[in-house]
Amino acid sequence: MSSTAPRTTGQDRLWSVDEHLEDILATVRPLEPIELQLLDAQGCVLVEDVTVPVSLPPFDNSSMDGYAVRVADVAGACEEFPAVLEVVGDVAAGQADPLTVGPGQAARIMTGAPLPPGAETVVPVEWTDGGLGEGPVTGMRARALAPEGAAGQVRVYRPAEARAHVRDKGSDVKAGDRALEAGTVLGPPQIALLAAIGRGTVRVRPRPRVVVLSTGSELVPPGEELRAGQIHDSNSFALTAAARDAGAIAYRVGAVADDAETLRATIEDQLVRADLMVTTGGVSVGAYDVVKEALSHTGDEDEPGSGVEFRKLAMQPGKPQGFGSIGPDHTPLLALPGNPVSSYVSFELFVRPAIRTLMGLEDVHRPRARAKLTAGRALTSPKGRRQFLRGAYSDGTISPVGGSGSHLVAALAQANALIVVPEDVETVEPGTEVEVVLLG
Amino acid sequence: MSSTAPRTTGQDRLWSVDEHLEDILATVRPLEPIELQLLDAQGCVLVEDVTVPVSLPPFDNSSMDGYAVRVADVAGACEEFPAVLEVVGDVAAGQADPLTVGPGQAARIMTGAPLPPGAETVVPVEWTDGGLGEGPVTGMRARALAPEGAAGQVRVYRPAEARAHVRDKGSDVKAGDRALEAGTVLGPPQIALLAAIGRGTVRVRPRPRVVVLSTGSELVPPGEELRAGQIHDSNSFALTAAARDAGAIAYRVGAVADDAETLRATIEDQLVRADLMVTTGGVSVGAYDVVKEALSHTGDEDEPGSGVEFRKLAMQPGKPQGFGSIGPDHTPLLALPGNPVSSYVSFELFVRPAIRTLMGLEDVHRPRARAKLTAGRALTSPKGRRQFLRGAYSDGTISPVGGSGSHLVAALAQANALIVVPEDVETVEPGTEVEVVLLG
Repeated sequence: MSSTAPRTTGQDRLWSVDEHLEDILATVRPLEPIELQLLDAQGCVLVEDVTVPVSLPPFDNSSMDGYAVRVADVAGACEEFPAVLEVVGDVAAGQADPLTVGPGQAARIMTGAPLPPGAETVVPVEWTDGGLGEGPVTGMRARALAPEGAAGQVRVYRPAEARAHVRDKGSDVKAGDRALEAGTVLGPPQIALLAAIGRGTVRVRPRPRVVVLSTGSELVPPGEELRAGQIHDSNSFALTAAARDAGAIAYRVGAVADDAETLRATIEDQLVRADLMVTTGGVSVGAYDVVKEALSHTGDEDEPGSGVEFRKLAMQPGKPQGFGSIGPDHTPLLALPGNPVSSYVSFELFVRPAIRTLMGLEDVHRPRARAKLTAGRALTSPKGRRQFLRGAYSDGTISPVGGSGSHLVAALAQANALIVVPEDVETVEPGTEVEVVLLG
Repeated sequence: MSSTAPRTTGQDRLWSVDEHLEDILATVRPLEPIELQLLDAQGCVLVEDVTVPVSLPPFDNSSMDGYAVRVADVAGACEEFPAVLEVVGDVAAGQADPLTVGPGQAARIMTGAPLPPGAETVVPVEWTDGGLGEGPVTGMRARALAPEGAAGQVRVYRPAEARAHVRDKGSDVKAGDRALEAGTVLGPPQIALLAAIGRGTVRVRPRPRVVVLSTGSELVPPGEELRAGQIHDSNSFALTAAARDAGAIAYRVGAVADDAETLRATIEDQLVRADLMVTTGGVSVGAYDVVKEALSHTGDEDEPGSGVEFRKLAMQPGKPQGFGSIGPDHTPLLALPGNPVSSYVSFELFVRPAIRTLMGLEDVHRPRARAKLTAGRALTSPKGRRQFLRGAYSDGTISPVGGSGSHLVAALAQANALIVVPEDVETVEPGTEVEVVLLG
């Protein structure tokens, strides 16, 4: 809990969406960095400034397949009067012991191979006869099929300036340069650079491990038959998928029945693999609201940041919410309401930013946009509650899908945005510009 | 190969970027669908229309924690003259054997629990004394702590209309409705709906398995010391990350030395786990261009779609490219050039769309935008080549980062877009509007 939100007042007052979010973001801290193999660090945030240990390229090398020569030897060369040079051998990429190129000599050189001592420039193979004596060629024959190309004579038909087709040592980055700043998110191009400068591992904040757990004695896994009064567990599937989508490693725990002891035991059991715990259901005012019952008085009251607080938010859907930390490591826990739409909307607004904060990302929120409401009739919203309706956003317009009911999961599956109706607005006429949260 | 691009002409002509891409997209086919567990299908494309087997909700249920009553019994109730009803027990969510509510009776009911026979409406607990006889309450005490709440009397302070706070059976979706259409990409909300209607598995196109293999005798894994003439392998890391980013399951194979036999053996060995194979390097006109040497004459000439063709593209970077299919299953193979920037740009333009085509996605390309060029001087581009420069895009403007050299991996790591300079443009002045490809 942040100091601005003393726990004692939590049960009594109505929290705004922003207050609840601020409290979460003030409490959740980025995970401790660890050293990861390069490909395991994909999507993670770098925590160190990475310096270039060795200049790139590490040596002068050819940018073409051709011949490494001395400038004077090809000066004035043309098709009628080619320069005729002695081929002293091949310089292939990765070759350990390069040749030396003397006056009147050429080394056949491949892209990426080091410019051999004595050579001052590279003429592309297309400017030569490739050693065949029959005018300009389009390429070399494979060494394996035509080893004679590494010897004999080559006719060069065009002159070349000094260091033409040569990539200078250090022309990409120099030793001591900063390759990447702390805070950089590692995508494919950044991984390319880290590999190129020789970094096999890198120090990043790891992906958070998020345990997702639904509660409710009525819940049956999909694929199993429903008996009277039962429904299928959808929250644990949806939020596991959403947690992965946010960047987490997510573990789905099957639905837990409404029994406080079982729930407490399950949570304790799962804590070992959780950087963040998310529960659904059991947070409202009923007599079987097991999450509230099991977690309301867990933490040591004297220990700051311990214990879970249950709140009412000025929000629809998603009024009842729990937030706090549990266990010896003060693992953050978000207890979301159980209706599928409520839990999903709560995830997007509160859990996703928490996950991305754990990752050390700066940009923790879904993007928002302004959009013109396209609807057959006005939207209505309860006074004093911030309403999040599901909508289909396209090209600056938004149409509501389904109603405001928090059980309408079919409509949710057709939505790609949330329509935000502020606390002080009770009616939104078609044609009005509204704020929308863009989902994925 | 498509029929419009006969193989015999491939080596001789210059292909446009669009022709090469069209050829790839005309050849690569979506993967055969398989039945996957719901969470394994995240991000995949559904291939069946999914119908709702049982209406949601499957039974009338309460949307509030409260009391299930008969309408007549609470008609006219107010704080001064509350309706006093006999509490016959609890109806919790998932409870197998619901009570019956008779005249003058109330069942304490929890959110999501079935409306018991005899009851016509639900009054929220906040409209009652919760059985305590001390005026309106804010919630119920936990059943475990106060079992007496399930019996005794309750005072109701407000009337309720018939079916108030009741979610009707089928009000979300009805049995027989189409829940999701074939072609839908399964994100968290779609997974929520599939779980809710009881689908434990679903038929989708799987994620393609992409094997990434770099070639070059000069390549050393990052983390190992460089000797003379060596550089670190970055392509296999960058493209493995990029393949994952595109939605694939990617396998990185370490760099293979420039030996045709070794390369052929490695590719054959890897084929078993590849839906698509990507190589880097060895596709140009040098004498050690091992990919070209190893794959130029693999397929049976009589068999359509077999064999790999090496081409020159009117493109910078990325002129030399190979494409075709190999092995008994005609596994598609894209042979990219070896310079880090060339291979990455080629991946974005050709491999990513191929991966997304394998996935069955409709939207296979990176988004493009128009942007105003911000630069200290004009960009120059070779005539007849479509140039892709690296740029930093922000808010409708683009600034080039680094030069056009295809070895400039440091600048690539600062870019978030590619600037497209068309074939017929040789100079782009600052302030000009250009097309950009937005990278992730």
